[in-house]
Amino acid sequence: MSFLPSELIKKKRNKNALEPIEIEGFIRGYTEGNIPDYQMSAMLMAIFFNGMTEEETLALTKAMLNSGEVIKHSNVKSFKVDKHSTGGVGDKTSLILGPVVASLGVAVPMISGRGLGHTGGTLDKLESIPGFNTQIDLDGFRKMIEEIGISFIGQTREICPADKKIYALRDVTATVESLPLICASIMSKKLAEGIDGLVLDVKFGTGAFMKTSNDAEKLALALMKIGQGYGKKVCSLITNMNQPLGRFAGNSLEVVECVEIMEGKSFIGANGKDLYEDTRELSLALSGYMLWLAGYKNSIDDCISAARATLYDGRALAKWHELVRAHGGRMSELPVSLNKFEISSLQSGYISGFDTENIGICGIAIKAGRAKTDDQIEPTAGIEFHRKIGDFVKTGESLFTIYGADLSLLNGIKEQLVRAVVFCKDPVRSDNLIHKVITQ
Amino acid sequence: MSFLPSELIKKKRNKNALEPIEIEGFIRGYTEGNIPDYQMSAMLMAIFFNGMTEEETLALTKAMLNSGEVIKHSNVKSFKVDKHSTGGVGDKTSLILGPVVASLGVAVPMISGRGLGHTGGTLDKLESIPGFNTQIDLDGFRKMIEEIGISFIGQTREICPADKKIYALRDVTATVESLPLICASIMSKKLAEGIDGLVLDVKFGTGAFMKTSNDAEKLALALMKIGQGYGKKVCSLITNMNQPLGRFAGNSLEVVECVEIMEGKSFIGANGKDLYEDTRELSLALSGYMLWLAGYKNSIDDCISAARATLYDGRALAKWHELVRAHGGRMSELPVSLNKFEISSLQSGYISGFDTENIGICGIAIKAGRAKTDDQIEPTAGIEFHRKIGDFVKTGESLFTIYGADLSLLNGIKEQLVRAVVFCKDPVRSDNLIHKVITQ
Repeated sequence: MSFLPSELIKKKRNKNALEPIEIEGFIRGYTEGNIPDYQMSAMLMAIFFNGMTEEETLALTKAMLNSGEVIKHSNVKSFKVDKHSTGGVGDKTSLILGPVVASLGVAVPMISGRGLGHTGGTLDKLESIPGFNTQIDLDGFRKMIEEIGISFIGQTREICPADKKIYALRDVTATVESLPLICASIMSKKLAEGIDGLVLDVKFGTGAFMKTSNDAEKLALALMKIGQGYGKKVCSLITNMNQPLGRFAGNSLEVVECVEIMEGKSFIGANGKDLYEDTRELSLALSGYMLWLAGYKNSIDDCISAARATLYDGRALAKWHELVRAHGGRMSELPVSLNKFEISSLQSGYISGFDTENIGICGIAIKAGRAKTDDQIEPTAGIEFHRKIGDFVKTGESLFTIYGADLSLLNGIKEQLVRAVVFCKDPVRSDNLIHKVITQ
Repeated sequence: MSFLPSELIKKKRNKNALEPIEIEGFIRGYTEGNIPDYQMSAMLMAIFFNGMTEEETLALTKAMLNSGEVIKHSNVKSFKVDKHSTGGVGDKTSLILGPVVASLGVAVPMISGRGLGHTGGTLDKLESIPGFNTQIDLDGFRKMIEEIGISFIGQTREICPADKKIYALRDVTATVESLPLICASIMSKKLAEGIDGLVLDVKFGTGAFMKTSNDAEKLALALMKIGQGYGKKVCSLITNMNQPLGRFAGNSLEVVECVEIMEGKSFIGANGKDLYEDTRELSLALSGYMLWLAGYKNSIDDCISAARATLYDGRALAKWHELVRAHGGRMSELPVSLNKFEISSLQSGYISGFDTENIGICGIAIKAGRAKTDDQIEPTAGIEFHRKIGDFVKTGESLFTIYGADLSLLNGIKEQLVRAVVFCKDPVRSDNLIHKVITQ
């Protein structure tokens, strides 16, 4: 097919819907280098302003998906399911739900990303384990799924090259925050994994991209439409990211938290509560829905119970160690930070909220996260959260512990971290962690 | 000043006004190659959607103007005035008004463009004269203004390089039709000429970029704001482009028309009317306002009368020949087309309108105009218009004559040309050529 790229930009600019064949041609032209960056960025900005219909978004996803390889797990008989989270601070559930679900015989072929901005990334957490190799080729990935039912890799050259190119361009042209572009980027990569089902963890709140549950729900529905358009089983959990999840944010620290949870442990914090509870319960809920999509049990409650059992009888932990070994990781060498110090409260009161995004940005400052894609991660850097929304804290009681190799960096975020805690005089209750489940 | 280009794109995308210093930095960064095309095209599309305030548009014009040289005519004592037309079919007034005004001692330093799309360009018309050199450097331009008070050149490397780069990018990213971008592009180039006054011929109708007089007026006011912001004398004529102007469209043909008008001639066409009338009257009105801005006479009527006199006493023609000689042109060698044939009406009725843009597109097909900037012009190709709106035409009577070197190309536009004439049963009157004049 022949068309003028500028005419297609104009069509979208003028609020007209593009035909699937036009979208396919534009994306192919861009991927092959026949359409230059400057025309794609004009198109992206036009999409930012005028949006896309469901049909267009589906066509965009398809074009991005078909720009690369769609993995086939021909030798894997079991259901294949993955989870995608829109990102948050301390969001480490993949490291638990993967082993949990795989330990029950449902395959988890997961292609993950790195952390960027205030949110962390699964690959960075895994790579804090010495030797853990996430840069495995697709044959190795397929083989690992066949053999142990689980693998975590990064996006390869073969997977959605169009998305890789477009994502980098969006980052520098202020076209990240566009629903159809976000949807196509997420779903093309997930569909390339060769999955049968997908559980979406769409977060809202002070630490999420979507600030309100309404916006999160809209994104969830748009993502689900695409998955369903591809005949996949999909459901969404709309979850609360108004405070960091669990006890730690920071790569090797989060691995510690996940392993301890898979060891069946709790951690009673300064507030007298189990600080692993939210990480554990969200991981189990997501695992439960993954199993439920796989038809493991008929009821969601039974699926969650089955998932919970694997944390206490060692099956999840065994699968975790199998996974780490398969990727070349050496758990015994997990690094520990050289320095740590506590940050205490300068006031007393009930904690009514956190500026969670700013906590994530503190994480970037101590190299637990990245501002730019080529920033280096310091694997032991991180923040421990001693308190949760609703806690009463007295002046001088500890709020956070900061960990990391570079003491001067740690000192640099002290004030910013304290300011990220919002106090009030009257008792407050934390909202539910799982706000809503959308199952169809 | 240091800033992230993507943050400025986001600022404009989010409907916030950019600071003058930010606009200046962005344009300078782009001109110097530090900001890539893909960020500029995203910015252009954001401006397309969110517009610019008057202050922003002025800052953009200034940044584009200051990206290159602003010509100074230090040795020219007289007022310096130019005209800018937003473009049309058969729009050849510059070739008349330049010599008319210069013959009365008011300098006309004109930097012109080439034709693109359905509209023609002054440079192409002049270059149909063998030897006529429009690629003169700024020293030569200044010298010619000093010596004969008039010169027509193309945009040089030194003039608004930012505009040159941005204009090329807009063309391929569907960001041409943006009021602030149009205004900054036009005005930066005109202000670089070193003029004291500017008459704007802002066209509306089926052959103009602006389809309605309202839109034309908006553009005129926006252009005038910028000119006034620079302390220039500016006025606008809002003129009707619902039919081609004059007798010919096509480069050497338009030169013939202009020379005959400057020879004081009329041309009585098949409709029994002077087919040079509209070209002559619009040229004289524009000349009159140019002289009026220069303070040549106190009343506009006196200025137009003075202009008219130069057509009948040979002064305009003498200045024309002086101009052509100074540019190296040889009028005696003006090429004539090898082929011509008439196109007759297939129906009878009153002509109520023309699809003038389509007539311009027919011109591209016979190489009288360009679809792309690197298309070659065939100087003798063109169309003669035998009829005007309001004429009664019988079946078989001639509508057009097509001229050109390549007979097969001429044949190719026959049907399209006939379809560009709109007939009706009842008598119609043509609207005024000059719809409105805005003098402040």
